[in-house]
Amino acid sequence: MSVVYQDVVNAQERIKSHIFETPLLRPDILEKRFGFPIFLKCENLQKTGSFKFRGAYNRLSQLEKGAEIVALSSGNHAQGVALAAQMLGHKATILMPSDAPAMKINNTRGFGAEVITYNRATDDRDVLAAKLVKEKNAIFVHPFNDYGIIAGQGTIGLEIQAQAAMPLDAMLCCCSGGGMTGGIALTFQDTNTRIYAVEPEGFDDLTRSLKAGEVLKNEKTTGSICDGLLSQSALPLTWELAKKHVFGGIVVPDEAVKAAMRFAFNELKLVIEPSGAICLAALLSGIYTPTSATALIISGGNVDAKQFAEIIYNS
Amino acid sequence: MSVVYQDVVNAQERIKSHIFETPLLRPDILEKRFGFPIFLKCENLQKTGSFKFRGAYNRLSQLEKGAEIVALSSGNHAQGVALAAQMLGHKATILMPSDAPAMKINNTRGFGAEVITYNRATDDRDVLAAKLVKEKNAIFVHPFNDYGIIAGQGTIGLEIQAQAAMPLDAMLCCCSGGGMTGGIALTFQDTNTRIYAVEPEGFDDLTRSLKAGEVLKNEKTTGSICDGLLSQSALPLTWELAKKHVFGGIVVPDEAVKAAMRFAFNELKLVIEPSGAICLAALLSGIYTPTSATALIISGGNVDAKQFAEIIYNS
Repeated sequence: MSVVYQDVVNAQERIKSHIFETPLLRPDILEKRFGFPIFLKCENLQKTGSFKFRGAYNRLSQLEKGAEIVALSSGNHAQGVALAAQMLGHKATILMPSDAPAMKINNTRGFGAEVITYNRATDDRDVLAAKLVKEKNAIFVHPFNDYGIIAGQGTIGLEIQAQAAMPLDAMLCCCSGGGMTGGIALTFQDTNTRIYAVEPEGFDDLTRSLKAGEVLKNEKTTGSICDGLLSQSALPLTWELAKKHVFGGIVVPDEAVKAAMRFAFNELKLVIEPSGAICLAALLSGIYTPTSATALIISGGNVDAKQFAEIIYNS
Repeated sequence: MSVVYQDVVNAQERIKSHIFETPLLRPDILEKRFGFPIFLKCENLQKTGSFKFRGAYNRLSQLEKGAEIVALSSGNHAQGVALAAQMLGHKATILMPSDAPAMKINNTRGFGAEVITYNRATDDRDVLAAKLVKEKNAIFVHPFNDYGIIAGQGTIGLEIQAQAAMPLDAMLCCCSGGGMTGGIALTFQDTNTRIYAVEPEGFDDLTRSLKAGEVLKNEKTTGSICDGLLSQSALPLTWELAKKHVFGGIVVPDEAVKAAMRFAFNELKLVIEPSGAICLAALLSGIYTPTSATALIISGGNVDAKQFAEIIYNS
């Protein structure tokens, strides 16, 4: 059984009065440069500063009030789950790597969640999570291999199509485990829009998996500034969707991501975190060349001031 | 004769397919903090990175193609006039102070205008402008004491009322010469919304003028980080509107403006220039306390990377 279109429609009904319908911008500077309308879906302006709140709210709103939740996340899923839990009266405990951006850890605590940090190099996070789930008799909310999460992220695709109000040739999605990519792809299943998964260099598991026709893993777990895009591989639910609905992968180096963040600061007046800028980077670097109207995801804006300052000014 | 409501409606008809209808955000973080809906009109996301493009396009679209334009501006009016001239096939020459933000000077040139810089301390800019106008047999487009400019900026007020779709208790406007403030105020003339002009400390001429019932001037011409809000005083057209329609002034120190820029970076994921953050600063600093639904202008986002990096990180 896989996630289906109607699940996304149901999710939209469930979450629409609790999330922001984020702006779909169409900057003239990009349209002039590429010769086609380029739409940016600004999920950095979503509650918690990233799209992850959509899936989290959709998932958690289907639980009984007071539920114990455990999640594992380097940042944006953590914040999404924490705020959704706070709004819905659940109790969230989040395992986060100790090297996650300080802003993401602080915000997660700010939304009332208990944060437990672990060491990426020495701890087995899955063992820690399983232990917590058992201790608290809690529900584990996976960041992407979850029906409710995928359906919630897919609502982005419904909004884009309503807001763009024109056929889209291509749709570029920032891709880690493939929850958002898969959910969005579902909503385009009856269109001619090509769906691309955009991944950082060294973390291009889905790009390679789609070519190979089987799930491949990344060798590394750290080493890109895209701290939200480091998942090891797709999992059954997202692989099912990717195989069926995703046209291909695009791989982007960190330097192009930094350049896209600078461009967004200078020209778009938007704060975008590294992972959130990867689709824009694919375009601006020339790795992907639009051939007609194209939409892309700006997935989040949670970046520490120090890192942002260095990227826009010193580098 | 003064600018009237119908002028703004006509301006909207003229410019609406050439400008962006910018998002009106309603951040949950502000609503939680103040207990009322707080709406942010994001003119930093307007073409040229500021609201000034509205007035410039409205004004310049009423001239014959190929017109010679001269303008005098520290930055955002310069960019607005330059892009509007480029789009409409006019020829723009812009006088800018040599200490204007580099980004504003570069962008103005980038939009195809000829930029002539002058020294704020030693040159008489009005003499320079008059000389240029004579030499080129050009039309001088004043940044605020101009019917077309005021009516164009006023379109912001029409959009806010349509987008907010609820009565507003107060409307906070970043105020220099009062063109935007006056234009917006006109569009609220039949409502109970109180219009406030928000000014930097030391450049509070309109605040004092409204109290005194006569036009007063600022003593200084430099000394605030709000480089777009340093006009000396209102002029006849804007004073006429301010007297009639503006409830009062709010004065904000630079430190509060910097704090608002940091808040916008961290919590809103928006790049706001100092002048553009002054209304948000009035709220966050507690200088103005909302008493019900409130809207405020984010007027622009044109800030140099060095200054922005220092404000969000080092200060």
